[in-house]
Amino acid sequence: MTTDDQNSTVSRRRLLGVAGAGALAGAAALGGFELAQASDDAPETPSAGLAYDFHGRHQAGIVTPSQDRLHFASFDVTTSSRDELIALLKAWTEAAEAMTTGASVGADTLTNYASPPTDTGEALGLPASGLTLTFGFGPSLFTKDGKDRFGLEARRPKALQHLPHFPADNLDPARTDGDLCVQACANDPQVAVHAIRNLARIGFGTVAMRWNQLGFGRTSSTSTSQQTPRNLMGFKDGTANLKGEDAAEIEKFVWVDPSDDANASWLAGGSYLVARRIKIQIEPWDRTSLSEQEALIGRERAHGAPLSGGTEFTDLDLKIEGRNGPLIGMDAHVRLAHPSQNNGTKLLRRGYNFTDGTDALGRLDAGLFFIAFVRDPGKHYVPMQNQLSSQDGLMEYLQHTGSGLWAVPPGIRKGEYVGQALFA
Amino acid sequence: MTTDDQNSTVSRRRLLGVAGAGALAGAAALGGFELAQASDDAPETPSAGLAYDFHGRHQAGIVTPSQDRLHFASFDVTTSSRDELIALLKAWTEAAEAMTTGASVGADTLTNYASPPTDTGEALGLPASGLTLTFGFGPSLFTKDGKDRFGLEARRPKALQHLPHFPADNLDPARTDGDLCVQACANDPQVAVHAIRNLARIGFGTVAMRWNQLGFGRTSSTSTSQQTPRNLMGFKDGTANLKGEDAAEIEKFVWVDPSDDANASWLAGGSYLVARRIKIQIEPWDRTSLSEQEALIGRERAHGAPLSGGTEFTDLDLKIEGRNGPLIGMDAHVRLAHPSQNNGTKLLRRGYNFTDGTDALGRLDAGLFFIAFVRDPGKHYVPMQNQLSSQDGLMEYLQHTGSGLWAVPPGIRKGEYVGQALFA
Repeated sequence: MTTDDQNSTVSRRRLLGVAGAGALAGAAALGGFELAQASDDAPETPSAGLAYDFHGRHQAGIVTPSQDRLHFASFDVTTSSRDELIALLKAWTEAAEAMTTGASVGADTLTNYASPPTDTGEALGLPASGLTLTFGFGPSLFTKDGKDRFGLEARRPKALQHLPHFPADNLDPARTDGDLCVQACANDPQVAVHAIRNLARIGFGTVAMRWNQLGFGRTSSTSTSQQTPRNLMGFKDGTANLKGEDAAEIEKFVWVDPSDDANASWLAGGSYLVARRIKIQIEPWDRTSLSEQEALIGRERAHGAPLSGGTEFTDLDLKIEGRNGPLIGMDAHVRLAHPSQNNGTKLLRRGYNFTDGTDALGRLDAGLFFIAFVRDPGKHYVPMQNQLSSQDGLMEYLQHTGSGLWAVPPGIRKGEYVGQALFA
Repeated sequence: MTTDDQNSTVSRRRLLGVAGAGALAGAAALGGFELAQASDDAPETPSAGLAYDFHGRHQAGIVTPSQDRLHFASFDVTTSSRDELIALLKAWTEAAEAMTTGASVGADTLTNYASPPTDTGEALGLPASGLTLTFGFGPSLFTKDGKDRFGLEARRPKALQHLPHFPADNLDPARTDGDLCVQACANDPQVAVHAIRNLARIGFGTVAMRWNQLGFGRTSSTSTSQQTPRNLMGFKDGTANLKGEDAAEIEKFVWVDPSDDANASWLAGGSYLVARRIKIQIEPWDRTSLSEQEALIGRERAHGAPLSGGTEFTDLDLKIEGRNGPLIGMDAHVRLAHPSQNNGTKLLRRGYNFTDGTDALGRLDAGLFFIAFVRDPGKHYVPMQNQLSSQDGLMEYLQHTGSGLWAVPPGIRKGEYVGQALFA
């Protein structure tokens, strides 16, 4: 195709520009070429010193440009005392305020020799690295085994239900649900791990970690300033994702409005966090032909352009036909996830690639830890996932092994604590 | 101590400078202060475009300045054919040559639509990120169940034995040993994961992955140009590590000399890789007082200065006494690991912090994945580890859960394949 074919190795960056030109029309691929070249010249290098304010109308870590690394943790509350739960949220708030500025937990961490240091120390000397900490409340915090645990039941949001069983779900209870969740995102994994570890430590005696998930590479962009990253299927992921810059759609699809739920006025300005641990059957996928892979996704792999033509950010044409039916097949992932097939719904996703070792047969336990923030999970997530789980051709290669839904309270002002409006 | 005490949060960077001044003599801490300030002003930001040559007298990834992230994999060979094993090493060499320059595996990965792409694609668009791939041969590649599997037994290095059982070892067979190992290090974890995945895929039918380990933060410096990072105990780790710049000591303690082993002249210019998965009992450690932590390590935590005085890089004074015996206790980690207590031996370590989820009680499964490169494991590693495992006070908080030893062949020239000298 080009002189590159004579080389035994082709630069991954050059490949972005020149390969795949045979995929569809030459013009479309050429457009992708220019796009890729332009973005390649300015690779993103997130500033290590970057720090996001923990305070604000909304919690950080939702429309914040997605950081590179994730440590997500789910906790169960082990106390039955409402006061102890509130004390924990206050202590977590104080620690989060410190750590998101790049500070240690506690002022005297290395001056009191008779006590354990207040901070575990592995991030000492590391900058804030864009750390955000986003907290959520699960259905079981309100009601567990039919019991109103902390006098919160009357204020439980109607939409905060355990997610239904989706077709082909294969959930591991040890990776599912939890009373509280914390999403730690940062550009340095050691900073994210440090944050979760210190929150877990502060919670000793009040909460126990139920499960946690490390993500090593983001799979979505949440800002127009970011390039679209690739998932472990090798495809760009999140091209059509909502971006923080889409202010009107973020209001419509992400933030809970005061009028949404009379039970839960405390949640106004908040959101819901959906987490799904999606294992990819890596080895069968890697043995699938390029044309089959592209048909299953509905985009070409080199640039992420839809199979209906154009470049990465061209909208899908779901009607255009080839010799064997629609260019974007009826079971293609991008068709089934498209707003036109989902009552106009758009998602703000913040997922991460993960790998967690190998199974007994030496196969990688790897995939995508899906995170989305939605205004109403019953409207904006469950119907789409039902459709995907039952019709998406890609499901042959995917297995949902973990799951959870949490209500994400709004942001706080200085002097307040996370979730204060719920307890007020 | 300073006006910082009035603040509720102290910058982690400022803390490095000002805390811990009460630990020992003020002068010592002040020296540490200047040191920390100087290095803080120039944080390391590894260039994403950084690429290391795969070819050379030695394999890359040994004295290479240690990158930020690790993906380590151990494989078992499933074929009994020597030719197939050689073909694998040739294919791995070709793929490693490509990936370490930032290229995809195979020239036609996205042009042949009828076949699976030759590269899995998740690193497409990402630069080389300093990727190194370092290959090793385990004892079981030579002899397994008393059988000379590939006609290599006569060339088996005498020092290539399974590591002995050390006191307090609690090894999981599923994280121990393996016929082949590959250490992938990079400044972007997605690049390291991509490399291991593609090597595993190339090996399908010839090798099966036995176990693998992700590391998210380096715990040693192997270059004087790098700051000393911190481990999950919160201490600087690797202050006294051999550095690539210490040419004479690297020759003495890392590279196998042609005269070392008449059986294994093919290993000259190579080394041995020792891997130990060391789980830290995080929760008990976090409940230990600062003075006890510092006594167990033998250094102060803020700056890494030895308890005998000075600043981080001051050598230990093992004789100097305080009111209750030596300032650096008889069971302090740094004493037992010091060259003077180990027949002059110095180690080149390249370890990484890891966290692999939680156990059934919600405790973090986290620790240090220890990697060292030694010229003779029987001389330069086993005696030191026996001493540490039996006498180091820190062992109360550590558990060795995985282990392995591999002979690391020398580097290759273009046109050769990894380990060629062994098969020649």
